[in-house]
Amino acid sequence: MSAFDSVSSLGLQHIWDGVHARVLHGERLTLGVIELDANSVVPEHSHEHEQLGVCLSGTLVFRVGEESRELRPGETWSIRGGVPHEVHVGRDGAVVLDVFAPTRDDWRTAPKVDTRAPRWPGSDPEGV
Amino acid sequence: MSAFDSVSSLGLQHIWDGVHARVLHGERLTLGVIELDANSVVPEHSHEHEQLGVCLSGTLVFRVGEESRELRPGETWSIRGGVPHEVHVGRDGAVVLDVFAPTRDDWRTAPKVDTRAPRWPGSDPEGV
Repeated sequence: MSAFDSVSSLGLQHIWDGVHARVLHGERLTLGVIELDANSVVPEHSHEHEQLGVCLSGTLVFRVGEESRELRPGETWSIRGGVPHEVHVGRDGAVVLDVFAPTRDDWRTAPKVDTRAPRWPGSDPEGV
Repeated sequence: MSAFDSVSSLGLQHIWDGVHARVLHGERLTLGVIELDANSVVPEHSHEHEQLGVCLSGTLVFRVGEESRELRPGETWSIRGGVPHEVHVGRDGAVVLDVFAPTRDDWRTAPKVDTRAPRWPGSDPEGV
């Protein structure tokens, strides 16, 4: 298996309503590029996995435990295992990158959906 | 400690010549946004940590074990623990995101350097 892949060739998977992921699994961690539709909501949930993430595009309001913040590209979150969190996406949608340890094995069976062009990176060859 | 932070407020640390990182440590994983100068080289090295990453901007030639590829924004790499890898950066430099499990504790003591504006995300409010 190649060490290399691309966001555009990773299959798109349905995670929540209006929330789809392109997922790269390792042995100890999982990296996901998550495309969130305009005004979509990730309802409160928690998992044993630690989660770190960064906003790549768009805006979202993220709540971790008792703390909420409106986030823009380049802003990050850190979620210890078991801490409830939820997300309310802005009117232009968002793309975020989330990483998890251990691997998100529950995502291995998330339903595949029709292929579409990735929302990130854009067509600018510099990617910014 | 807040669950939230931003790439622009994470201190810049010297990792290799021409290679600097802004680093977010969790308990089980580390996320780094790495700024690589034009034509810089990450010499062959290996570490016990598993590493997954994605190119955010620019171009680079990445070698993992015996496999090499020229990578652009949105392209990814997966490096199992202990596998040697090296990087040769293109003439416009690059910014990449790398994640590691377990945490890169050796990076906690990497020297801090003068603050400068982050090279990613750009000033476009959409970040793409």
